[in-house]
Amino acid sequence: MNKQLKIVTIGGGSSYTPELIEGFIKRKDILPIKEIWLVDVEEGKEKLEIITALAKRMVKKAGLDIQIYATLNRKEALKDADFITTQFRVGSLDARVLDEMIPAKYGILGQETNGPGGLFKAFRTIPVILDIIEDAKELAPNAWIVNFANPAGLLTEAVLRYSGWERFIGVCNLPFGMEMGVANMLDVEKSRIRIDFAGLNHMVFGTDVYLDGQSIKDEVMDKMIKQSSSINMKNVHDLPWSPEFLAGMNVIPCSYHRYYFQKDQMLDHQNEELKEGTSRGTIVKGVEEELFKKYVDVTLDVKPPELQLRGGAYYSDAACNLIASIVNDTKDIQVVNTRNRGAIDSLRYDEAVEVSCVITKEGPRPISTKPLPAAAEGIIQQIKAFEKQAAKAAISGKYEDALVAMVINPLVQSEKLGKLILDEMLVAHKAHLPQFKAVIDDIEKK
Amino acid sequence: MNKQLKIVTIGGGSSYTPELIEGFIKRKDILPIKEIWLVDVEEGKEKLEIITALAKRMVKKAGLDIQIYATLNRKEALKDADFITTQFRVGSLDARVLDEMIPAKYGILGQETNGPGGLFKAFRTIPVILDIIEDAKELAPNAWIVNFANPAGLLTEAVLRYSGWERFIGVCNLPFGMEMGVANMLDVEKSRIRIDFAGLNHMVFGTDVYLDGQSIKDEVMDKMIKQSSSINMKNVHDLPWSPEFLAGMNVIPCSYHRYYFQKDQMLDHQNEELKEGTSRGTIVKGVEEELFKKYVDVTLDVKPPELQLRGGAYYSDAACNLIASIVNDTKDIQVVNTRNRGAIDSLRYDEAVEVSCVITKEGPRPISTKPLPAAAEGIIQQIKAFEKQAAKAAISGKYEDALVAMVINPLVQSEKLGKLILDEMLVAHKAHLPQFKAVIDDIEKK
Amino acid sequence: MNKQLKIVTIGGGSSYTPELIEGFIKRKDILPIKEIWLVDVEEGKEKLEIITALAKRMVKKAGLDIQIYATLNRKEALKDADFITTQFRVGSLDARVLDEMIPAKYGILGQETNGPGGLFKAFRTIPVILDIIEDAKELAPNAWIVNFANPAGLLTEAVLRYSGWERFIGVCNLPFGMEMGVANMLDVEKSRIRIDFAGLNHMVFGTDVYLDGQSIKDEVMDKMIKQSSSINMKNVHDLPWSPEFLAGMNVIPCSYHRYYFQKDQMLDHQNEELKEGTSRGTIVKGVEEELFKKYVDVTLDVKPPELQLRGGAYYSDAACNLIASIVNDTKDIQVVNTRNRGAIDSLRYDEAVEVSCVITKEGPRPISTKPLPAAAEGIIQQIKAFEKQAAKAAISGKYEDALVAMVINPLVQSEKLGKLILDEMLVAHKAHLPQFKAVIDDIEKK
Amino acid sequence: MNKQLKIVTIGGGSSYTPELIEGFIKRKDILPIKEIWLVDVEEGKEKLEIITALAKRMVKKAGLDIQIYATLNRKEALKDADFITTQFRVGSLDARVLDEMIPAKYGILGQETNGPGGLFKAFRTIPVILDIIEDAKELAPNAWIVNFANPAGLLTEAVLRYSGWERFIGVCNLPFGMEMGVANMLDVEKSRIRIDFAGLNHMVFGTDVYLDGQSIKDEVMDKMIKQSSSINMKNVHDLPWSPEFLAGMNVIPCSYHRYYFQKDQMLDHQNEELKEGTSRGTIVKGVEEELFKKYVDVTLDVKPPELQLRGGAYYSDAACNLIASIVNDTKDIQVVNTRNRGAIDSLRYDEAVEVSCVITKEGPRPISTKPLPAAAEGIIQQIKAFEKQAAKAAISGKYEDALVAMVINPLVQSEKLGKLILDEMLVAHKAHLPQFKAVIDDIEKK
Repeated sequence: MNKQLKIVTIGGGSSYTPELIEGFIKRKDILPIKEIWLVDVEEGKEKLEIITALAKRMVKKAGLDIQIYATLNRKEALKDADFITTQFRVGSLDARVLDEMIPAKYGILGQETNGPGGLFKAFRTIPVILDIIEDAKELAPNAWIVNFANPAGLLTEAVLRYSGWERFIGVCNLPFGMEMGVANMLDVEKSRIRIDFAGLNHMVFGTDVYLDGQSIKDEVMDKMIKQSSSINMKNVHDLPWSPEFLAGMNVIPCSYHRYYFQKDQMLDHQNEELKEGTSRGTIVKGVEEELFKKYVDVTLDVKPPELQLRGGAYYSDAACNLIASIVNDTKDIQVVNTRNRGAIDSLRYDEAVEVSCVITKEGPRPISTKPLPAAAEGIIQQIKAFEKQAAKAAISGKYEDALVAMVINPLVQSEKLGKLILDEMLVAHKAHLPQFKAVIDDIEKK
Repeated sequence: MNKQLKIVTIGGGSSYTPELIEGFIKRKDILPIKEIWLVDVEEGKEKLEIITALAKRMVKKAGLDIQIYATLNRKEALKDADFITTQFRVGSLDARVLDEMIPAKYGILGQETNGPGGLFKAFRTIPVILDIIEDAKELAPNAWIVNFANPAGLLTEAVLRYSGWERFIGVCNLPFGMEMGVANMLDVEKSRIRIDFAGLNHMVFGTDVYLDGQSIKDEVMDKMIKQSSSINMKNVHDLPWSPEFLAGMNVIPCSYHRYYFQKDQMLDHQNEELKEGTSRGTIVKGVEEELFKKYVDVTLDVKPPELQLRGGAYYSDAACNLIASIVNDTKDIQVVNTRNRGAIDSLRYDEAVEVSCVITKEGPRPISTKPLPAAAEGIIQQIKAFEKQAAKAAISGKYEDALVAMVINPLVQSEKLGKLILDEMLVAHKAHLPQFKAVIDDIEKK
Repeated sequence: MNKQLKIVTIGGGSSYTPELIEGFIKRKDILPIKEIWLVDVEEGKEKLEIITALAKRMVKKAGLDIQIYATLNRKEALKDADFITTQFRVGSLDARVLDEMIPAKYGILGQETNGPGGLFKAFRTIPVILDIIEDAKELAPNAWIVNFANPAGLLTEAVLRYSGWERFIGVCNLPFGMEMGVANMLDVEKSRIRIDFAGLNHMVFGTDVYLDGQSIKDEVMDKMIKQSSSINMKNVHDLPWSPEFLAGMNVIPCSYHRYYFQKDQMLDHQNEELKEGTSRGTIVKGVEEELFKKYVDVTLDVKPPELQLRGGAYYSDAACNLIASIVNDTKDIQVVNTRNRGAIDSLRYDEAVEVSCVITKEGPRPISTKPLPAAAEGIIQQIKAFEKQAAKAAISGKYEDALVAMVINPLVQSEKLGKLILDEMLVAHKAHLPQFKAVIDDIEKK
Repeated sequence: MNKQLKIVTIGGGSSYTPELIEGFIKRKDILPIKEIWLVDVEEGKEKLEIITALAKRMVKKAGLDIQIYATLNRKEALKDADFITTQFRVGSLDARVLDEMIPAKYGILGQETNGPGGLFKAFRTIPVILDIIEDAKELAPNAWIVNFANPAGLLTEAVLRYSGWERFIGVCNLPFGMEMGVANMLDVEKSRIRIDFAGLNHMVFGTDVYLDGQSIKDEVMDKMIKQSSSINMKNVHDLPWSPEFLAGMNVIPCSYHRYYFQKDQMLDHQNEELKEGTSRGTIVKGVEEELFKKYVDVTLDVKPPELQLRGGAYYSDAACNLIASIVNDTKDIQVVNTRNRGAIDSLRYDEAVEVSCVITKEGPRPISTKPLPAAAEGIIQQIKAFEKQAAKAAISGKYEDALVAMVINPLVQSEKLGKLILDEMLVAHKAHLPQFKAVIDDIEKK
């Protein structure tokens, strides 16, 4: 039997944590956990305490012997960790609202993962991730870092390129949700459906679909074409695809493709939200507040059903399945963000990709995919160029690197607006951008 | 000494032809031409006659023994040709005006080479080019085809991918103009300047600049940064680049990059033109009419200076230099559109690229370039994806292929608008799109 | 539940067949077989009958309802087949003896898979395989061909390159045997051991080794180094490796590497065999005769234990496991010969490789491997060059293509000897080399 | 006009130096040289003085104002050098005789460039080259290093991979000689012939041949086939190729290919030399002694014609042409060893290759080649694997790395003999292998 595990959750005060705890509880027979350490920062102390108390109640109710610890001292927690999950949000949801609202003011989509919003989320998050890795090198050199913080692809790219740490895996619920979507469409159990995924996080295509292992791609494409639909996720505004576009692509787009191929309509939608003073971020903020009201209730000892609405459905499943398969060398196929190693011909060997992988005790091993059609590979390659430039800027702290990342983003395409947005966002997020301090000081002087 | 050459110019009635004739005359010592055949279609007969008469006067004035022939019978002309230049415009300038105006109505840039306009120019031109190649296979299997018709990159891609004919070279005056621009900026002779070019037609970057062979890239970048400028071409609306963007890219953008990185301002400019009922196409049309008024003047026996304003400056030099270097195995470096063969690491081995080449009697041989920075390669890869999808659609005549080409174009990004534009353009260009006949009939029925 | 399967075995009269039948019987719960068709050629009729009778007895003894058919009419058998196994030997063991003996006369290793012997085995086998595929296209277009005929890698290369048929998988018992070897060395169950394989058939390296999913490569290398051994297979003469060579390679060589890195000692061994008038082929012939004496015994209704000595141990397991995993979409990891698709960075995308794959209902999907060390990739690349040249020659039937294949083989390296061996072998195998008929006639005339 | 150059020749006491001096003198109009510094080591002092005196007489006779300096102080010489030529021989010709004789004792070809002999030449030379580069980084950071020391390809690989210095070019006279050979075969001026070269040093293929720029490859292949010959160099024992082998390869092999494709005959030849107690090295030693007898003659003031026999014909032309083209940004095509950068598809982007390049002031720029046929690429890839392993061993000084380099060499293929040869050579060259000191001490203790 496997050793008892120590799991550390950075951003433990997140509203998602109960889902993660539930995921661990559900897998008690395959995941032998001894300790869970919830780590957060000073500003999150109150939430951390609420979550910790709830987690303890959940574990107790499940009758499990798992110790739950809460701490603001990251190093203490990391010591000898087996798995480190990272799900923190630097600047919390207020920062996300800025990520969405500032670009929107200039008529540009904020898009918190691959857009200008995601660029700043990366700028805030990458330095912290690299710090955690430096700690891990010293305190837990054999740990796996399982990251759900967004932008998950860009963070994986930055880590693999700049940190010298290989045991880092980016996880997203989107592929899980797409398989669920197909299962629902066909009215079969999700476990019977598998999609071959190839691309980048939030920019991934399904290149084949299987029912019980048999390719049913043509049937699924036909069905999507007839319904003018795709498989959508809750966190992206739903719009139909035209039958002809789906037929021409001949691969299954993810919901985020709407930002690039239905940009005007997504902008219209953003503008409506803007008029109402809301954004996805403000909605989520409201949901979170409601959730924490539940969480403080000392009689609550299970994950409340409202959490499902939070937008991160299946996150816990994605992460817990991954951890369980690593622990048990399950060698099942899961979709994660990892180094390409030749699996996707459209991207370079050493680039981070989102791809179907066999999950082994030694981590994910990408499965070779069929070549992506030309129509699909162009946008993936451009987002990859953006990711690499963004990672470079996040490390260098140079204004010119950041500006280029902003302008080459296919949602921006404007040097003039890009500059305005960049300047305003740099100043707005000043507290969380130590690497850009000199640059921001300069802007503020003007 | 080399054999006497037979040169065939498809689209001989073009207003550019006198420049080409002048180019041949200027190179009389290195280009031993026996015959020039000017070929055009029925609708262009009048212009062809005017141009032929002028060409004869020019040759006579130069005291050369070159026979000029005019014909509407392409096959007759192609027999045993050594060089075939293709510079025709299917649908003439009226078609170009539609290429620009229809997208503009929907708030989308027309852009006659890599944009929606260029897509339709390719749809009209590719079938004709492939026909010419079929004739050439039979009548002039050793001929080189030197193409200036736009979109030169996309046409080269289509030919190399679908025709089985290798002796096809796409020529553009833009790299020539950029070298001229640097020479002017530094106030030196153009012959002392050389730029390493890597990318695609109208989407090319200067990766290094040399003065007498010594790299002066840093100085040139500095100068451009100080002047907030780039090296511009007459046919793209001039806008300054910010110093920070230039510094961040650290390669020299071409003027067409404005469409992708200053899209909003280019749109503003298009909208102004639209208000005035003009477009680049209508302006060119006016210039052309003026030119033909000059050309009919029987006392004119040289290229009139007004031709320079036409926008195609250096085209003749680019084409004639290429032909002269092939004939003489000069092995000098020129920039053309040809198969990549490993020279540009960001693109595939067999894709058409615009790249610095050694020009030999056996054609252009790409020179290995340094890797493009990530910031530059993304947009190039996306345009290449567009080109491949566009070439596929131009051959297949399928609506779904055409729609995908339209929507993945970074100037469109909207399935909804893309569909509207596509439908309107298909109908508008009906006469020149035989491969889309069934599709257009369907649209018209609705 | 899955449909009832029809399995066709080309070369059904082989002495291996009882092992295959046993493999199907052992897997009765996961492999629902309705019919097994044993196909052979006229010369093999007697053996076919013996095997068929034995197979029927075995099935009966197992109490299964599987119909066994024997036929010399391949087309009849192929109709609607689900799996076609190919294990025939064109020219039977007599041809193998020639494959080994003729090169040996010239002081060259025969080596029946990647050496001159394997070259001729490929020349004899490829045309037949391509014929079978033509039949399958017509009669069983959804069948999988599972090939154990040697040289399995070269045949896979030829099929993928020249036949237009993708559902072809080359199987070898060597990887299975190497995992068994490691299990024995560590005294653990084989099921707990997994090796990452990368390379070509009979030219494969183990790039990592796992016990229960945990990498134990360093321990295994250490153990091999201390024992100066490797993991050997019965069919290659056993020689120790030096500790320093193993340490320097730092990947696990397969037993066939001895032909390339211990060539002189393998030659010595061949010369000894030659003196005794034996070769591996003659030994195997003797074993076969003994086996058939057993097989005719009507009381025999199980696989006789002597078959184990035949050299093909685990072949049945390798093939039956593969078939079972395809049928059941098991998605376990097996090592097969298939198209690379980026999994091994040292080889091209479309080349046939031997690599660890996930086995799905839609066939094997290679898993990305770590880059092979330079020391390992050179010999693999050279054998791949040999395989491609050999496949080309097997199709073209040109003397010059065959000569180059012979000479570039690292066991030959001599144009002079290569020519002598080639000529003698062409004539000796004349009856089975229709594609070289004109060439052989020329040789015989001299 | 260009600045006056300072040229430094490491190994200035070489018998080749007068040829180099003559080369500079012949190019006086395009190569404005101010100073030539001849550098050598203590043991070469006497020869250095003889050569220096001769060089001064040569320059004086030519009426040029070039200062010749001799020094044993390398740093003094390197200060502000423009070009550094490296042509030294660590251990002098005695070491070469060992390189050839020790392997020969074991029945293995010594081959002083890509064989076991070359391996040890690399082991002795690489540390010295890296030392020179460290000096150059400090004293002459803009200098070009033009290396003729062998093995020129392996040294280039080691420098590009391990030194961080890019301005290093490996030069060989073999491509020059092959073009000369074709010119002689066709009885035309060499300047009219050009060969496209692709491969590695002493393992290069001519993929096309041009007369005045027109491909005449088919005619040249035919002629070679009819003459059963190839284009040979003085320093490789001449053997005919069979017509069929040449036809099958369909690219022009270099003379060193005999070691790999006519290995047995080359071994026979070596054995004959061995019986006579000679090797190429001993012959060259005799020639050298004769040459120095000439050189001391104070009336000699030109390069003596006997030098031609030395085997290095055209070395001076190759090196001086390269230097002149860099100085003058000539942009002519020359064949050198440099980084691949995509030019040869069979090799990786960053590997050192021998390839046709455009020579610019900023160094050589490889020209894209057509893909090599499979038959040619295998041996090139294997030699490249050997080169990389050899470079690794030359730096690491590890016994296991050296052993693997020895064994994977296609001239060795034997772990047992490889070990014997390695041990004997390590001890024999002890004085020049500081990096292997610990290893050699161990061997000697046994």
